[in-house]
Amino acid sequence: RLPLALIAGPCAMESRDHALEVATALKEITDRVGIGLVYKSSFDKANRTSGKSSRGIGLKAALPVFAEVKERLGLPVITDIHEIGQCAPVGEVVDILQIPAFLCRQTDLLVAAAETGRVVNVKKGQFLAPWDMANVAAKVREAGNPGVMVTERGVSFGYNTLVSDMRALPIMAETTGAPVIFDATHSVQQPGGKGSSSGGQREFVPVLARAAVAVGVAGVFIETHPDPDKAPSDGPNMVPLKQMEALLTTLVAFDRLAKGLG
Amino acid sequence: RLPLALIAGPCAMESRDHALEVATALKEITDRVGIGLVYKSSFDKANRTSGKSSRGIGLKAALPVFAEVKERLGLPVITDIHEIGQCAPVGEVVDILQIPAFLCRQTDLLVAAAETGRVVNVKKGQFLAPWDMANVAAKVREAGNPGVMVTERGVSFGYNTLVSDMRALPIMAETTGAPVIFDATHSVQQPGGKGSSSGGQREFVPVLARAAVAVGVAGVFIETHPDPDKAPSDGPNMVPLKQMEALLTTLVAFDRLAKGLG
Amino acid sequence: RLPLALIAGPCAMESRDHALEVATALKEITDRVGIGLVYKSSFDKANRTSGKSSRGIGLKAALPVFAEVKERLGLPVITDIHEIGQCAPVGEVVDILQIPAFLCRQTDLLVAAAETGRVVNVKKGQFLAPWDMANVAAKVREAGNPGVMVTERGVSFGYNTLVSDMRALPIMAETTGAPVIFDATHSVQQPGGKGSSSGGQREFVPVLARAAVAVGVAGVFIETHPDPDKAPSDGPNMVPLKQMEALLTTLVAFDRLAKGLG
Amino acid sequence: RLPLALIAGPCAMESRDHALEVATALKEITDRVGIGLVYKSSFDKANRTSGKSSRGIGLKAALPVFAEVKERLGLPVITDIHEIGQCAPVGEVVDILQIPAFLCRQTDLLVAAAETGRVVNVKKGQFLAPWDMANVAAKVREAGNPGVMVTERGVSFGYNTLVSDMRALPIMAETTGAPVIFDATHSVQQPGGKGSSSGGQREFVPVLARAAVAVGVAGVFIETHPDPDKAPSDGPNMVPLKQMEALLTTLVAFDRLAKGLG
Repeated sequence: RLPLALIAGPCAMESRDHALEVATALKEITDRVGIGLVYKSSFDKANRTSGKSSRGIGLKAALPVFAEVKERLGLPVITDIHEIGQCAPVGEVVDILQIPAFLCRQTDLLVAAAETGRVVNVKKGQFLAPWDMANVAAKVREAGNPGVMVTERGVSFGYNTLVSDMRALPIMAETTGAPVIFDATHSVQQPGGKGSSSGGQREFVPVLARAAVAVGVAGVFIETHPDPDKAPSDGPNMVPLKQMEALLTTLVAFDRLAKGLG
Repeated sequence: RLPLALIAGPCAMESRDHALEVATALKEITDRVGIGLVYKSSFDKANRTSGKSSRGIGLKAALPVFAEVKERLGLPVITDIHEIGQCAPVGEVVDILQIPAFLCRQTDLLVAAAETGRVVNVKKGQFLAPWDMANVAAKVREAGNPGVMVTERGVSFGYNTLVSDMRALPIMAETTGAPVIFDATHSVQQPGGKGSSSGGQREFVPVLARAAVAVGVAGVFIETHPDPDKAPSDGPNMVPLKQMEALLTTLVAFDRLAKGLG
Repeated sequence: RLPLALIAGPCAMESRDHALEVATALKEITDRVGIGLVYKSSFDKANRTSGKSSRGIGLKAALPVFAEVKERLGLPVITDIHEIGQCAPVGEVVDILQIPAFLCRQTDLLVAAAETGRVVNVKKGQFLAPWDMANVAAKVREAGNPGVMVTERGVSFGYNTLVSDMRALPIMAETTGAPVIFDATHSVQQPGGKGSSSGGQREFVPVLARAAVAVGVAGVFIETHPDPDKAPSDGPNMVPLKQMEALLTTLVAFDRLAKGLG
Repeated sequence: RLPLALIAGPCAMESRDHALEVATALKEITDRVGIGLVYKSSFDKANRTSGKSSRGIGLKAALPVFAEVKERLGLPVITDIHEIGQCAPVGEVVDILQIPAFLCRQTDLLVAAAETGRVVNVKKGQFLAPWDMANVAAKVREAGNPGVMVTERGVSFGYNTLVSDMRALPIMAETTGAPVIFDATHSVQQPGGKGSSSGGQREFVPVLARAAVAVGVAGVFIETHPDPDKAPSDGPNMVPLKQMEALLTTLVAFDRLAKGLG
């Protein structure tokens, strides 16, 4: 039972300077709190609610920034890919390839991600039962890659709402045999809830994160931003950067208790 | 922020001897663990899945047993009532009257329970949003009784399944202003899931109870039985009595951490 | 396969004159359209969202009005009961006793209704699967009354929303062996959706009613009012009386097609 | 208000001979019934529950078969695409490009499909509200292609279950302004319900199709197969070919009534 890990960063990569600023701040915070950090950002928001929403800086601009974050700060990095052709170039730089929830059953994408040899983190579709992820994890492993992780991010509950079933965490751990991450950011999303963008309930991030850590997870996924209300995506559900240290301190204490880590 | 309280006992009262045996055992356990106990049992299972299921020993036989549990063990007791006429006689003995989830919107029953002057614990209907409980709590208070508690016990999620939305706990606390209890037993019920009776997933009681306590609740509700598989009702989701001490020890530790109680 | 029947009337009985006015108008409409009518109204709204909502004129005032509707207009009447003690007096006058959805598993209420010898119409709880109604219907029959009907009125779907699963209609017909009614009024309710009262989507009543009749049902339940926006309850989902004739004409045509009735 | 159209064919293309056999049979049936036919088959099942399930004959083998169906039988054809690179070659042959439900928010795929100039039929994600499809349709139109259709195929309802909300049909028609298709085959799917494959409830295809046609739709989508239980995918929810004529005859009658088409 390893201590809790953290996947964090701004939802979308905005610029080199912004990425380094947030990564540096997060590294300092997590060093103080004593929790391992994987830096996350997206280079492309490929499935926005509306076609008019901003997309991101793109793969070519983002890869050197990920490389710089790794080299200068010594942090592992994770990003999400959306097409088969992105897997190889992204896999040359980032440590973990993330499969978006909507795409978690696209066999060819899972196989292409697996074939990079990098760890693959698959988000559970909002339309899947937790036990359905066993078949998903198997697609990665059968492609020759044992390095698969699975992430809970809420399940459809009526319209424009998700609910987090805490039973999903042990069920996924048992049925997939993979480390389970709880994504506290997207679990509080209200998909499509603002008409041409998704709403969110930032105030419930700590609530659900505490619950998940108490149940026992390998890691938590929490998007953060220096000024969420100005962020290009997922602003309503990102945690302000200055609140992260207190939140993580609490989560680490719950994790120690949950795992009996003295 | 008061320490976590426990509402516990066998789902249905089976006999005087059985009730005293379980209450005595629970008192010893909770004294060792250091958690306050309210003893719970039902005298009538008024809404069984099937009309052929057993109902319980009835109000007349149960009241003297509740009185004896109170007197001999010094424990407060709670039971659920189903009809207006039961409120007054039950209110003469038990400390907390519980309104079943299906009946949580029956105004006259809420008022009759309120008029006993006893604390009223209303279970949230499986068909209600957490914020809907504000109107329910108001019905009790407007009847002149400020002593209302509310209990989360899962919300309908597809057919024959409930899901526990941990956001409901702070939402109910804020919108009702009442102490919030998490019922870990009925939240893992699979209503009607076994054809002519309800199924259950006992293994998830500790999972959901830990999550709820980490979020922060006034109390947990956990039905227990020396031999759940022989119990007349809710056997599949009751926790074996011999597992209670370990479970409660964990929950008390999580509660102290959640509430910053040293 | 009998032709489609209609259960209709204003949600709450407002006064003798109002009841007779609506019943007379409905009788004229249904005579022209050629559909059998059962007149419905409630004498008490016992489970309002808020305790401050109006309740209705009460059992004593309502029974003579039901008797007058029967005698003067020759219409069978239906009303809902909420307590065991109401069954006998109501059963002396009305032709069909209706069990509200929240109360559909209260064994004693089902038995008391059954023992009147009147037909019992049980609404399916918003928290039940369609196959769960087999046990409910059995409770009525085991009390010695073969005259049981079951009514679909939507199932919980997230918060403050119901969804109508059209598969429920044949499933209930097959598993209960009872006539199946589709309640198009409460299926479009948004429970608690307006804070201290329920919202509704009147515009979907014809949509869901057409769907249900095309699938094949014994009857439809449609609340109507001369001026729904001034009605004391369920205004947002009642159909204006002046729109009923066109709606019923369409439904009768769909019913003939669905049942091959020339 | 145009008469009802039909999209039909076997879920997966199995071989040239099989495709021509089924297309020929369907053409004869639909000619007799008097309903327009678009022939559907998939060349690749790209998101199977399990990675070990069969995938299909592939794009290269399928395109000449689609061309032959068009030429010999004069039928328009539709198939689903999963990657941007498939859009152009598929668009050279087939008349309608279909976007799978899981992929309905992938902006680049929608744009690539739109840019073929072919009609684009987007299935509504199991995780979307009906009004969310307005943004999806806008993505196609903003790419310069006014030819967009939207298809209802059920929404997540608990685990491993979908429910068809008939209100979604008029809501999508109004909010997207596009023709609305009801997919009666996938609406009765039980996703992942058989462990390593999806279950289905073929018996409810006529039930839901009748309901949808009575509400009013531009078309129905019904997968069919000469021997569904031997089909490589979606067998449990495909309608046997020999039952199609009776089903379509009924649906056409309901459509005429629904649209007042004499």
